[in-house]
Amino acid sequence: MMGEKMLHNQITAQIIAIGDELLIGQTINTNAAWLGEQLNAIGIKVHRSLVISDNRDEIIKALNEASAQSHIIIMTGGLGPTKDDITKHTLCSYFNSELVINEDVLARITEFFERRGLPMLEVNRLQATVPKDCTVIHNFRGTASGMWFERGDRVFISMPGVPYEMKGMMEDEVFGKLAAFYKRPVIRHRTILTTGVGESFLANQLSDWEKMLEERSIALAYLPSPGMVKLRMSSYNEAGRDVEADFNACETELHRLVGEHVYGYDKDTLQEIIGSLLKQQSATLSLAESCTGGTLSRLITSVPGSSEYYLGGTVTYANEMKVRFLGVPRTLIETHGAVSSEVALAMAEGARAHFGSDWAISTTGIAGPGGGTDTKPVGLIYVAVAGPGGSLCIELRLGKRRDNNMDMAAFAGLNLLRKEILKQKAEF
Amino acid sequence: MMGEKMLHNQITAQIIAIGDELLIGQTINTNAAWLGEQLNAIGIKVHRSLVISDNRDEIIKALNEASAQSHIIIMTGGLGPTKDDITKHTLCSYFNSELVINEDVLARITEFFERRGLPMLEVNRLQATVPKDCTVIHNFRGTASGMWFERGDRVFISMPGVPYEMKGMMEDEVFGKLAAFYKRPVIRHRTILTTGVGESFLANQLSDWEKMLEERSIALAYLPSPGMVKLRMSSYNEAGRDVEADFNACETELHRLVGEHVYGYDKDTLQEIIGSLLKQQSATLSLAESCTGGTLSRLITSVPGSSEYYLGGTVTYANEMKVRFLGVPRTLIETHGAVSSEVALAMAEGARAHFGSDWAISTTGIAGPGGGTDTKPVGLIYVAVAGPGGSLCIELRLGKRRDNNMDMAAFAGLNLLRKEILKQKAEF
Repeated sequence: MMGEKMLHNQITAQIIAIGDELLIGQTINTNAAWLGEQLNAIGIKVHRSLVISDNRDEIIKALNEASAQSHIIIMTGGLGPTKDDITKHTLCSYFNSELVINEDVLARITEFFERRGLPMLEVNRLQATVPKDCTVIHNFRGTASGMWFERGDRVFISMPGVPYEMKGMMEDEVFGKLAAFYKRPVIRHRTILTTGVGESFLANQLSDWEKMLEERSIALAYLPSPGMVKLRMSSYNEAGRDVEADFNACETELHRLVGEHVYGYDKDTLQEIIGSLLKQQSATLSLAESCTGGTLSRLITSVPGSSEYYLGGTVTYANEMKVRFLGVPRTLIETHGAVSSEVALAMAEGARAHFGSDWAISTTGIAGPGGGTDTKPVGLIYVAVAGPGGSLCIELRLGKRRDNNMDMAAFAGLNLLRKEILKQKAEF
Repeated sequence: MMGEKMLHNQITAQIIAIGDELLIGQTINTNAAWLGEQLNAIGIKVHRSLVISDNRDEIIKALNEASAQSHIIIMTGGLGPTKDDITKHTLCSYFNSELVINEDVLARITEFFERRGLPMLEVNRLQATVPKDCTVIHNFRGTASGMWFERGDRVFISMPGVPYEMKGMMEDEVFGKLAAFYKRPVIRHRTILTTGVGESFLANQLSDWEKMLEERSIALAYLPSPGMVKLRMSSYNEAGRDVEADFNACETELHRLVGEHVYGYDKDTLQEIIGSLLKQQSATLSLAESCTGGTLSRLITSVPGSSEYYLGGTVTYANEMKVRFLGVPRTLIETHGAVSSEVALAMAEGARAHFGSDWAISTTGIAGPGGGTDTKPVGLIYVAVAGPGGSLCIELRLGKRRDNNMDMAAFAGLNLLRKEILKQKAEF
């Protein structure tokens, strides 16, 4: 009965992350983002996410608030073996329960330590205790078990804060249990990724287009991040409407308006798009990095299977290494300086020749915060691409933040390569 | 008067991040971690951090709750020029205020667009409106102004969600204004960084040591993250106690107990520690990466001034490139396979010779998720260091997650280099 009633309402979830380390900023709460994304995909809307300290009163207050607001309350953290971890005891008292040894869990923990040849300590044995009236959520990646409590149409879930363990438990058990417990409306998203223009410019170009979305009950969000703006369309439509057809119609119109700035969809990354393009062409890539210091290479190799098209790269930080590994003429560096379009082009062409790849990207610049001059300020970066049809270089004038400059230059390099591959495809 | 009363109480802050993109997980709330850390450093304790959607009712409910719980309420997000950004209008109604054009802000926005040669749109002009009775927090990095409201001993602050803009506004104005508004007790932290042992092992070794901390009113937290456990000591002591002396005594005892596993303090990173050690020795470093794919190089170059000691590196993904760029004998790869201690050692020694550096780190392994065999499974990684006194290699057997394997192997490489440099120092 409950399931049927629920069908017509949005199922809401609230995340409560417990841990002083999150509040004082020593750990970033990546769990909340992951949970939000995964729950959303199965039609459960996270409407609130909270971080509180390892403190009994705070936990109980948060549980009281949350149970009045949300169907599903997901807690992460505070289940470790050490004294500052008090979530389990607090849940036990919140649900008027008592801790008992769970033999399954004890056997698993014992085996966990035996397999690793580690001694099992009393604190680990105590991890096998759980509140009597919860359902244990098994943790096959660590020693802290999760807990599932039901109270009417509310579900309370507690899991460890270690992302790898929590994600494993959600995937092994929790998503399935939630899907069985609640019937859910359909939520769909489509995100279009743009680069090269700002949020205000897009909003201005797209004001009529936004009306088109409204007519179709599609919500729109602009999500700017360094170097890009994501446009996310969301439809919470439950009834018979063909959401995909609506998305397609809106997307076609968007392409007409600002298509030159669109580079991908949803979770596409430039490195994955480039990987697909290179695989289609059976083409190979090499890298010649200076100021990006390995950033481009890490991005390219983060894609599983990148060894199919990525031959390798150099990080030539010292000028001499640009000469030795890439064959950049020493006179070119002396005449124009290492930070110049001439050297960027020679690096990309040198990488292409030395690695024997079809394509190459190079970067050279002043990442900062020090090292700038009047004529070559911090943030001046040259990015070049060499390919079968020749090479070209762009100049970036970025800010003073080292990490940001490295990331933005790497992003620009990937996008330049993407455009050059597409241009070449169009020509042949 | 309020200031004096406050002196004896903890000043508490609450962070309210506003934005659907945070709840559905498209953006990770790094702002909360940064704010927590910075506020903590000036003696303000963040006791709660909340994320809610761009929804008027949710914002007002959160403000009502927060103002009953916390002295300082810091809001981030929802101030952009687009329709989904409603924070400013909601604050205006919450404080019974009205929006008026602020001429200073208008002038700054106009100048912002003129300087960049961009057209100024009506939506940007509207960004110059602020609630009549707030103090404007100027934003010198973007077009959305911040707002500061006072209600008795409560302060409400609203800033844009773009991290770079928010951080700039905090540093330019807000920290100073908060320090002037509230007197604060002293909170100090010292964090000791360990690697090579787990949380349970440490907790067991340190149970007596924890009593020593308790006697000195020092709170302890274990903060595990991949490859390391941080031990954070916190003292909220207001009175005359010499907190630094207490920290020093506890640290000495900790070194006696588990000193071999300690690699640094507070915000030290292995790449910074290595940078300092290399600079002390006037020594240089090169890298020969395979399975870490540029991760080590990015870490090393993320340290400003790393060009003093880092000559460069290669990412030799294809076997042929290990031969060509590092002089690894082809027969060695054929006999032992590219993933072997022999090849790892030859890569490190080859990098040292080809770059002419004092030290070199190499990595070769199967990062996954594919590519494993029975004898060489996914997660098998060799990490080698070559230096003035010879070279050595360690074998890692990690999991199946590509990004994690790349990060853990890079961490292991940095730690191996650190230990080898220290060993060499001790010998001479």
